[in-house]
Amino acid sequence: MTAMTRMTLDEVRALSEMVLARQGLAPEHVAAVTETIVAGERDGCTSHGIYRLLVCAHSIRNGKVVRDAIPIACDTAPALVRIDARGGYAQHAFNLSRPVLAAKARRHGIAALAITNCVHFSALWPEVEALASDGLVALACTPSHAWVAPAGGTAPLFGTNPIAFGWPRPEGLPFVFDLATSAVARGEIELHRREGRPIPLGWGLDPGGQPTTDAAEALAGAMLTFGGHKGSALAAMVELIAGPLIGDLTSRESLARDGGAKASPIGGELIIAIDPAGFLGPNVAEHLARAEALFEGIAAQGARLPSQRRYEARARSLIEGVLVSQALLDDIKALLG
Amino acid sequence: MTAMTRMTLDEVRALSEMVLARQGLAPEHVAAVTETIVAGERDGCTSHGIYRLLVCAHSIRNGKVVRDAIPIACDTAPALVRIDARGGYAQHAFNLSRPVLAAKARRHGIAALAITNCVHFSALWPEVEALASDGLVALACTPSHAWVAPAGGTAPLFGTNPIAFGWPRPEGLPFVFDLATSAVARGEIELHRREGRPIPLGWGLDPGGQPTTDAAEALAGAMLTFGGHKGSALAAMVELIAGPLIGDLTSRESLARDGGAKASPIGGELIIAIDPAGFLGPNVAEHLARAEALFEGIAAQGARLPSQRRYEARARSLIEGVLVSQALLDDIKALLG
Repeated sequence: MTAMTRMTLDEVRALSEMVLARQGLAPEHVAAVTETIVAGERDGCTSHGIYRLLVCAHSIRNGKVVRDAIPIACDTAPALVRIDARGGYAQHAFNLSRPVLAAKARRHGIAALAITNCVHFSALWPEVEALASDGLVALACTPSHAWVAPAGGTAPLFGTNPIAFGWPRPEGLPFVFDLATSAVARGEIELHRREGRPIPLGWGLDPGGQPTTDAAEALAGAMLTFGGHKGSALAAMVELIAGPLIGDLTSRESLARDGGAKASPIGGELIIAIDPAGFLGPNVAEHLARAEALFEGIAAQGARLPSQRRYEARARSLIEGVLVSQALLDDIKALLG
Repeated sequence: MTAMTRMTLDEVRALSEMVLARQGLAPEHVAAVTETIVAGERDGCTSHGIYRLLVCAHSIRNGKVVRDAIPIACDTAPALVRIDARGGYAQHAFNLSRPVLAAKARRHGIAALAITNCVHFSALWPEVEALASDGLVALACTPSHAWVAPAGGTAPLFGTNPIAFGWPRPEGLPFVFDLATSAVARGEIELHRREGRPIPLGWGLDPGGQPTTDAAEALAGAMLTFGGHKGSALAAMVELIAGPLIGDLTSRESLARDGGAKASPIGGELIIAIDPAGFLGPNVAEHLARAEALFEGIAAQGARLPSQRRYEARARSLIEGVLVSQALLDDIKALLG
């Protein structure tokens, strides 16, 4: 049995702030990164919760993060904004440019934000949920490190390349999904390796490019995309639109830049925001109600909305706090020593 | 053996024009619809080639197409354009609004086009390929009829909801994909039914909501999305952004409007276009070259680029013409009688 410790979200926040400050991260970055770490832990996404403090510390100690980076925004076109994170974490750059993106989307109907030259370790749902909470429809994606083979290929080329989507709901929390275009998260394969369990066929290839059920072989070889050639096509799209289109790295270039440090991916993120009032004018409420009918149609079949499990975890965490592995907590507290 | 007849592309075009004109379609619609039918046949997408003339005739004879519709464009926001197809086919509306979308994308960096109130039977790749040929990055999607169950559900709610993407290449034809978010095309299941072959598990559910390998049962029940809950999330996104976001029908509403006529879906299409110069300014060529390195990385593994097979068929068809089933040709020529 793993010993577990209950923490309030305030305690999680305080721990994160203390650890990140001890790594020399500037206060505005400490605050921004902490919010996504608290959000991950709160929503039951433990792989994106306080566990990531270990990842942050590792990236920072390997010199892969500019700890006091001051992002600089550039108004490259009327409906675009590009913010150069200057080697720092993406979160602070997003916080700075979110109001600009929202204002441009409202003014022009659609707008896009490119966060470039950033270190990215977090999930994308916090960004799209924030924009959907602003009443906007949002789509976000980012490459990562080259771990995933294209369909029909044999070697890593794509990142896990997530696509996240947010849709505002008149009442309650937005409709949000955030899906890796890899068959599973890399952490899932690592978990199987640690536990000595085989992985299902379809998750990875061995270093020779052959299908494997051996987790260690898949980690040394290549992961596979979800949904065969369709997932592979979507992964390629993410490489292109959050890479060369915004002047930033592909996953292969990010991994090369990493130089074996196993730090978080470096590169860019693209976020598109659409104002429902742009097409709908005064009829937004009427058409958002028709979207609600779609959600009801999903729920009426006993199917789950993508964000439902996270929101249920959030409701619990806000009242009860979260359960954290004592071993993980010990590892994190060691960073304070 | 099926008897086959060789036709030049000019003969395919002439046949399509004659058949569509005989159905009473106005000349500008005849021309626009014919171009996508010729393109489908030329590119080896036989399900979207002259076979569709039978589908068009059926939809028109059931009164589901406004044969002389004059689309009206509306400038709803600086970076948006909405064109009301007024019950006609989507193609003519797209042709009319394509230059407006391209101009808006160049001016604002990103722009979106909503084609509303249209009849849609064609693939989406012609639209994104056209925009990529204009030097733009393009993303398009459309709902269809409610044939597909959400992941974890039991009954049809989503359409086959394709997502198409186009990326301009400095030399040669654009990088293009066009993928249904259903596991397979509906026509693929119909083909299995006609031939009395079982379908693989994962394609469909029977009317009781249980997994089935019986094609007829799946057609009467529900199709499934590709890639499980991830494909289902993407299908929901398409419903939302090419449905309520643009004030148009969901797949369920489209099927209800059809009233059992089994005509082509009615509703809307959303197309987003991004000008690479928006983010990249004078550095477009440098970064498009980095995209080429990604494509080379795919090809170097022996994997196929999504558009490769279509382009190979195109190159052949332009020289040799196409082979068409004589039985299909007889059925089509009967429409002239």
